[in-house]
Amino acid sequence: MRLKELSAISGISQASIKYYLREGLLQPGRQINQTLAEYDEGHVERLRLISTLRRLEVPIDSIRFITARIDDPECSMSDLLGYVQLIMLGREPDFSRPPTPEHPAVSRLVDDMGWSRRPGQTLSLLSETVRAITDLGVPVSDDVLLGYARAADAVAEVGTGVTLRADTRDRAVLIASVGMHSYNKLLLSMVAVAQASAVVSATDA
Amino acid sequence: MRLKELSAISGISQASIKYYLREGLLQPGRQINQTLAEYDEGHVERLRLISTLRRLEVPIDSIRFITARIDDPECSMSDLLGYVQLIMLGREPDFSRPPTPEHPAVSRLVDDMGWSRRPGQTLSLLSETVRAITDLGVPVSDDVLLGYARAADAVAEVGTGVTLRADTRDRAVLIASVGMHSYNKLLLSMVAVAQASAVVSATDA
Repeated sequence: MRLKELSAISGISQASIKYYLREGLLQPGRQINQTLAEYDEGHVERLRLISTLRRLEVPIDSIRFITARIDDPECSMSDLLGYVQLIMLGREPDFSRPPTPEHPAVSRLVDDMGWSRRPGQTLSLLSETVRAITDLGVPVSDDVLLGYARAADAVAEVGTGVTLRADTRDRAVLIASVGMHSYNKLLLSMVAVAQASAVVSATDA
Repeated sequence: MRLKELSAISGISQASIKYYLREGLLQPGRQINQTLAEYDEGHVERLRLISTLRRLEVPIDSIRFITARIDDPECSMSDLLGYVQLIMLGREPDFSRPPTPEHPAVSRLVDDMGWSRRPGQTLSLLSETVRAITDLGVPVSDDVLLGYARAADAVAEVGTGVTLRADTRDRAVLIASVGMHSYNKLLLSMVAVAQASAVVSATDA
């Protein structure tokens, strides 16, 4: 299909498509002659991913980072989804930074839960979060961590299967990012309701 | 104590204190003469709360909203903490907006969990979140909601007691806001690690 058709099918303006091509988020079409290029279903799918990520307010640089990893056969599925996680938590994957040493409480937890230590970025984020919280003077006991980890395991079961059954990497990233964005919001609103309910019970008692 | 001493004890500049007084976040001191006012321990505590909320990137308008409720004896503890929750989830409490009707799945859930329906704002947020997610095309089954709710209940137990044992409302809000900010981050990083681990197990299998 030509640019005009790609725009009609994807619902994205030709100007935006040209911008994504310039920015390298979208691979160039197959060049037919100097002014015409042919696009395919892969381009439609990529545009669907880009427009979804933009709607979720992911910055262009982070989208470029992710699409480059989708197109890189050396990047494994678990690394790819690890990057999606960091980005959906509002972080920018930064290779110039040395990895954070594991927080001792996190090491114990990962062993207790039988969790994998890959991909490392996600585990670094957890260690950093535990450090930031203790720096604020908020206690983080092993019991609290374990309680949260069990809750997290229950939550993680939802969606992982659906993501991995996707037939393209673009589609897997789309499902994973919408899922994380949505379910993270859901979880936090749910915790707020549960806490509010606990406060009401306690103050009525 | 005088302004100078209040500034030294709280570690907040006199200019900032004057700004908080002008903005109504801090109650005026007891006027001794036309140029001198006397401040007390309550002012120190309020400044501690304000500077913590600013460090957590809460906008000044939201801080003003919260401090006004702390000072309003008509505002119950559970309503007060409900507002803190909304603000820590990045929302501004808005009284001009009609309350969101309960999502049917949320109604069933609240009944199943035996949760309180007060304060209503938090429940509205949950209903809105469920609606936003289904609008995105992401399925939200009763089973998923129930699984999340159980996890949320486990998480909510942590901290509620500590908050309610605080001996002033300023202190309760301080503990609640730092706790929510920290533990929400912790929970999301934990879910990310659990998901990453589930992906690694599934793709290795």
